[in-house]
Parts: sequence; C-alpha cells; structure tokens
Amino acid sequence: MADHYELHYWTGIQGRGEFVRLALEAAGADYVDVARGPEAQGGGDGALMRRLRQAANPTPSFAPPFLVHGDFVIGQTAAILIYLGPRLGLVGKTEREVLWTHQLQLTIADMVGEAHDTHHPVSVSLYYEDQKEAALQKSRDFRTHRIPKFLTWFEQVLERNTAPGTHLVGSRLSYADLSLFQLVEGLRYAFPAATTRALADKPLVARLHDNVRALPRIRDYLQSSRRLDFNEQGIFRRYPELDAD
Amino acid sequence: MADHYELHYWTGIQGRGEFVRLALEAAGADYVDVARGPEAQGGGDGALMRRLRQAANPTPSFAPPFLVHGDFVIGQTAAILIYLGPRLGLVGKTEREVLWTHQLQLTIADMVGEAHDTHHPVSVSLYYEDQKEAALQKSRDFRTHRIPKFLTWFEQVLERNTAPGTHLVGSRLSYADLSLFQLVEGLRYAFPAATTRALADKPLVARLHDNVRALPRIRDYLQSSRRLDFNEQGIFRRYPELDAD
Repeated sequence: MADHYELHYWTGIQGRGEFVRLALEAAGADYVDVARGPEAQGGGDGALMRRLRQAANPTPSFAPPFLVHGDFVIGQTAAILIYLGPRLGLVGKTEREVLWTHQLQLTIADMVGEAHDTHHPVSVSLYYEDQKEAALQKSRDFRTHRIPKFLTWFEQVLERNTAPGTHLVGSRLSYADLSLFQLVEGLRYAFPAATTRALADKPLVARLHDNVRALPRIRDYLQSSRRLDFNEQGIFRRYPELDAD
Repeated sequence: MADHYELHYWTGIQGRGEFVRLALEAAGADYVDVARGPEAQGGGDGALMRRLRQAANPTPSFAPPFLVHGDFVIGQTAAILIYLGPRLGLVGKTEREVLWTHQLQLTIADMVGEAHDTHHPVSVSLYYEDQKEAALQKSRDFRTHRIPKFLTWFEQVLERNTAPGTHLVGSRLSYADLSLFQLVEGLRYAFPAATTRALADKPLVARLHDNVRALPRIRDYLQSSRRLDFNEQGIFRRYPELDAD
C-alpha cells in the first residue's frame, strides 16, 4: 500500500500523463493507470472526470494528470514529479539537485506547451481544421525558432554537466532525463523533418534520448501495450503540413 | 549576505518577475532588482542578457527571471518560489502544504501563459499587429471559456479551505495567494469587462485579491516606484478590442 501509486489520466493519449508514467515505469514502481482499467474498478474517462470534480477533495486538480498515493492527491505534472522523484530514486539528494532537476522539468513543460499550441494556437475548444491558418504560421515559427532555441539550451546543459555519463543532472538518471526523452520522441513524431535537422548538431540530446530508450525497463515498457502510440488527439500530432518548408 | 537575494529580470515590465518580487516584498526580504539598477552595478537588459548566457554557470536559465542567492542560481518562476517559500515564511511546513501550494502556483502559471498568448497566439517574434486576427479569436475564447473556468476553480479551492481567513492554503499567507492577487490584477488590467463579469460571482477570489492588496508591505510596494505600471510590452496588455463583445 505505502508504495502503491494510482495515476489518473485520460485513456486515449500519452499526453502529460506520459511524463509521470515514464517515471513510474523506469523505477519499476507498483502503479495502476486507473482510467485505463475496467469500469468496475473506476476505469473510463467518465469516471476520471467525476473523480476530478469530486467535491470532497480538498486538493482538487484543475486537469489530469493527478496522482493518488495514500491520502495524497497531487495534480500538475511537475508537482507530481517533484513528489515522486525522491520516492522513486529519480532525483539527486541535495537541494541543489532537486531544484535544478525541477527547473529543467519546468522548461521541458514550457516546450511541451508550445508544441501543443502549434496545432491549437487559438482554442482547445475548436477543431484543428478551424484554426489551421494560425497553426501553419505558429508551426513555422516553432520549427524555425523555438525547436532550435530549446534544443540548443538542452545541449548546453548537457555540455556543462561534467559528471560521467550523459545526464541532465549529475551522473544519474533523473525524471528530467525521462521527460527530455519523451519530448524528443514527441518532436520526432510531430515534426520529423525539423527535428532531424535540429538534432544533427545536438549529439548529447540525441545520445541521452537513445540511452533512455535503451534502459531495460523503458525498452520493455515501450514494447508493451501500456505504451500508447502517438496519435492526433494528443499533444504531439503529425500533420505533415505543419512540418513542411 | 545569507539573506540577500538578487532578482534578475527585464527592466521595463512586471512580467513573470513580478511573482517573485511580490514574495520578496511581502516578506520584507533584503533583495536587489539587479537589471533595474545602475549599469555600473550590472544594471540594464544587456547585462541581464550577458548574465543569462554566462558560459560558466552550470545551472543556466532558459529565460529570466532567475534568482541568485549565495551560490544558488535558480530559474523558472515556480522553482524560484518553491525555493523562497520556506525561507520567506510564505508556505506551510508540511510536505502536503508545500506540494499543494506549488500545484496552485503551477495552475496560476498556466493561466498566465494563456493570458500572454491572447495577444501573441502565433509567435513571440511577431508584433501583435501581425497576429491580430488570431489574437481576436483567442481572446474571445479566453474571455468566454478560460477566464470563467480558471476563476471558478480558484473559487472552489477557496471554498474548500475551511481554515480561518481567506487563503488558498490553510490559514496563512502563501506565495500562491500573492500570485493569485497578481493574476487578478493583470486580468483586470487586460480584460476589465470580462474580469468584472467573471468576478461578480467569485466573492472569495475577489476578497483574497483585496486582502493581499491591503497588506501593509504590499500596499507600500504598490505605491512605490519599484512597482512598474502594467504596459503593452508585458504579459497583461490592454488592447480594448481583445476585451470587446
């Protein structure tokens, strides 16, 4: 019980839940992805929505994902990871390492938000097709300016880390490494041409991505049915016109 | 020295730096707003940019604000606040309070990001005038759906907090209260009509805002020259056409 985690997230997409899932998987944690389970056990997006709106919860989340652990209910991906980090051994022990890992995570989250907004620059309540003109413009800017700027920054962070191995923080795997892996996966899916170009001179980002992918537990997870494919309901969407120059 | 803080942020706007500034001011902390100082002491946006890009910094920030305290250099507003919270007495002592306050801060940050994107939905490197069509659309969605949805959630959080007083967490002032104050200030500046409408049935959010504004140190700060006015280079911009129905 003490080490049993409940992840609550939408059923059909990787989404922001995936950053939490990767941490749980990399650590071999005992967890259940509640909404993906049978309805009798609280599965389904309807049950997730009801739980999100539960009036008795003194710490309600604005949106999924949220994590239930004992009587903790925690929302916001980065807050979940700051909670899980020490419990799963996915962050260093010093305050400096805890903070720096979190700062990296928040910067990853910023880029994830921008990647999402390439296909929904105007409103999450409109279809992509109804905001396509703005999406084309925003994606051009994202490919031309934002992908290079963010990935250059991550490459610099890796260059400045003189500890052995290829990690964002020190010489050990952290949840920020896992999140950067997922960010690169998503960018490669949504913007394959632009991402290949940008990674050509970012050898450390590319290596970190490959190293994470090869971790035994991550490799097993990626091949399992627990890992959903990217799709056009998620954050990272492949619309070829948004990757065309 | 131990309690001397250096805040590094752009000179001409409140921006994201303001969330840090409010925490420092509310606590009566000893701090300097470096870029606003004289050039001989590292003032100016050019010096800020050079410091941001300092190659020797092992924990570089992607963007301002960043905080220097002793040999800590911390970027990302929410990470700065999780660091300052316990040092300034602006967060509860339990892990639960620390996490919940942070979750609230991250949700405030999400809304701040959306408020910014109302006038820059396509690209931060284009002028507002060059993305005005998308801005009009996004602002309509923000006024109609997002302002009510976020403020309803904050109102619920305040309703569910049964501790005495009007605070987001427990019965004491936290940095999340200060940030919600600033968010409401910004919304009132940028979207006066829509925000007045939305606050009409959010008495607790309105009261928390008024209470924070009346705190002696905050009141003094707001009347000082250290508090910049909102303007049309910042996050919250008053373009009347974006608040018109």
